[in-house]
Amino acid sequence: MSKNRVEAFSDGVFAIVITLLILELRPGEGVLNAHDMIVQAIPKMLAFALSFVVIGTYWVAHHRMLHYVKTTDRTFLWLNLALLMVVTFIPYPTALIGATRGEADAVLLYGATLIAANLLGTLVWLYGTSPAHQAENLKHGQRSRVALVHVAPVVVYAIGMSLIPFAIAITLACYAAVPAFFILAGPWVDRLVAGTAE
Amino acid sequence: MSKNRVEAFSDGVFAIVITLLILELRPGEGVLNAHDMIVQAIPKMLAFALSFVVIGTYWVAHHRMLHYVKTTDRTFLWLNLALLMVVTFIPYPTALIGATRGEADAVLLYGATLIAANLLGTLVWLYGTSPAHQAENLKHGQRSRVALVHVAPVVVYAIGMSLIPFAIAITLACYAAVPAFFILAGPWVDRLVAGTAE
Amino acid sequence: MSKNRVEAFSDGVFAIVITLLILELRPGEGVLNAHDMIVQAIPKMLAFALSFVVIGTYWVAHHRMLHYVKTTDRTFLWLNLALLMVVTFIPYPTALIGATRGEADAVLLYGATLIAANLLGTLVWLYGTSPAHQAENLKHGQRSRVALVHVAPVVVYAIGMSLIPFAIAITLACYAAVPAFFILAGPWVDRLVAGTAE
Amino acid sequence: MSKNRVEAFSDGVFAIVITLLILELRPGEGVLNAHDMIVQAIPKMLAFALSFVVIGTYWVAHHRMLHYVKTTDRTFLWLNLALLMVVTFIPYPTALIGATRGEADAVLLYGATLIAANLLGTLVWLYGTSPAHQAENLKHGQRSRVALVHVAPVVVYAIGMSLIPFAIAITLACYAAVPAFFILAGPWVDRLVAGTAE
Repeated sequence: MSKNRVEAFSDGVFAIVITLLILELRPGEGVLNAHDMIVQAIPKMLAFALSFVVIGTYWVAHHRMLHYVKTTDRTFLWLNLALLMVVTFIPYPTALIGATRGEADAVLLYGATLIAANLLGTLVWLYGTSPAHQAENLKHGQRSRVALVHVAPVVVYAIGMSLIPFAIAITLACYAAVPAFFILAGPWVDRLVAGTAE
Repeated sequence: MSKNRVEAFSDGVFAIVITLLILELRPGEGVLNAHDMIVQAIPKMLAFALSFVVIGTYWVAHHRMLHYVKTTDRTFLWLNLALLMVVTFIPYPTALIGATRGEADAVLLYGATLIAANLLGTLVWLYGTSPAHQAENLKHGQRSRVALVHVAPVVVYAIGMSLIPFAIAITLACYAAVPAFFILAGPWVDRLVAGTAE
Repeated sequence: MSKNRVEAFSDGVFAIVITLLILELRPGEGVLNAHDMIVQAIPKMLAFALSFVVIGTYWVAHHRMLHYVKTTDRTFLWLNLALLMVVTFIPYPTALIGATRGEADAVLLYGATLIAANLLGTLVWLYGTSPAHQAENLKHGQRSRVALVHVAPVVVYAIGMSLIPFAIAITLACYAAVPAFFILAGPWVDRLVAGTAE
Repeated sequence: MSKNRVEAFSDGVFAIVITLLILELRPGEGVLNAHDMIVQAIPKMLAFALSFVVIGTYWVAHHRMLHYVKTTDRTFLWLNLALLMVVTFIPYPTALIGATRGEADAVLLYGATLIAANLLGTLVWLYGTSPAHQAENLKHGQRSRVALVHVAPVVVYAIGMSLIPFAIAITLACYAAVPAFFILAGPWVDRLVAGTAE
């Protein structure tokens, strides 16, 4: 299985998952008027937007990872499929948050899913850039620095989850903070990872 | 992230969104006979056809844009993902129009979504063809002319939306007029944009 | 828009539509036991299998068509999108047949959809192989012979539809006969089209 | 139809089917609280995970098969589409197991689907590597050894199915054992197939 195929298959799964999110917003049959339907759907819209950005961030991160992987083998393939399984799972806690308007257990499951995705992503990275598989463009120290970048959000998610009993809005803000950080601070993260940040 | 990958991912999302539209037409379970189900589904069929053509038009426009973009960066990537998020959202107001048989708020949300798509498309275009990113094939004055072509439909959508209190059919006709115009007058638009139209 | 992109986008839509068919088979929530659910789902399974083969046949035909098209333009693009819209619509009459266990109007709509697909396919073919667009590999007389192959099933579908008041099973058999014919008699059709059949 | 197109189309279908599995987990509308929804969804989550791994295994196997196929023809195309139809069907028995919490008939249908997939996969393999179609890289004896690897799981599935009256958990364990075996013992299977295992 060439790296290109794994990449194309992963891209396909990312594109499908990110688009399927909209299916959660399907309106029911005509009991309500349009205005009330839209108002009721607002938590679902927010959950849609959050997960779209989260999955978009994972997609970007996945590409950057594979850029430094030269060869793949069965183990890599299955680690990557496990990561894709967790990403594919994201629409469920997303829907749950939307359907329950952010009940604690839904928000908890969402966070646990993100943590699983980050930990599996770290594993995919460490395996794919182990000496036997890494590409020549990997710089000294970059492997552990990228691993740190993958693990760091776990701390943010965990802090957010620990706040669920107090303020679920803050928990959700913690979840949203991770993609927001990577969008806004992306260039700085790139320099950090390349070892050229001050 | 190469331009090709962004293009392939965007194509995937467009193909999935345009196809998912049909899921809104799913019949319920056997309370009605087939004839009544079909009659009831007519507003949904019209909404399906409208959104199929609208998303098809966006897909064509997206390709034409990327033809003049040479290099992409993180900012371009995220602007493009924001555009894709709005396009991915289209099935929701589509479903809402179908389910409520064109209630005012559903038609309003649909128009607002199209306006957001056009404005984001303009942003993607202006960023992607800024001096640092534009390809050599971009002609003098083409950048602003294409931006105008992206912004002009916003006026049509807005006029349509302002007519919602009076005649929703005219609003929907305004929405449909935009893709119809680009289908029928496409060659003329091409000459306009290339600066060769009289 | 290059031919390759149109082909890749069309392939994507075909792959998505053919796979979405399974969503019609989704079981409801636990009122029935598994045995009754399966028995009740048999008409839906048959409709799934019919549409899977029908769409598969269209996909194969689509590829063969584009093999003889050299250049595409806006008109071709939109004719092709119209064809894709009709193909994307197929899951709806499929679901309707499944949900109503083959009521007349559902079977009629299914037939009308197939006729629209074949007529649009013929248009795509005739436009794409007009002197300005055809590839060098198109043989003399092949253009009209392939057009005939696209139009001929319309007759079969129409005969089937005319039998709806008498025996819907025969109508469905007519619909199924078309892909069955192309699967079984494909090599003969190829020779016919190439002008080498006796 | 080139081998590459068949491969790309098949990849698309695999990616879509594996992702659509998550749609079964869609929560209903707000009658239950999030905690009860999650607890109720556990059988569906397990069914999702099982089918994700099963389809992932089929995807990997499909790629390995096509690696040894040089040329394709109509018959190969239709055998492959038949295989894809069975793979596309998998979400239905998956959903049924989830919705009925593993009732006997649901588990039976799931097993029958897997058996059909393996037998069709064997057919695709034998046809695609018949002397007229096989690639040069196929080693002596490899054709029958791979066929055996495709057929062997049928025995495991059948044993599992025969145990349905006694212990459905063991049946499901049999189903799960097949992908688990290919994940864990993959390298050994590779050597066996290449004729280099002791």
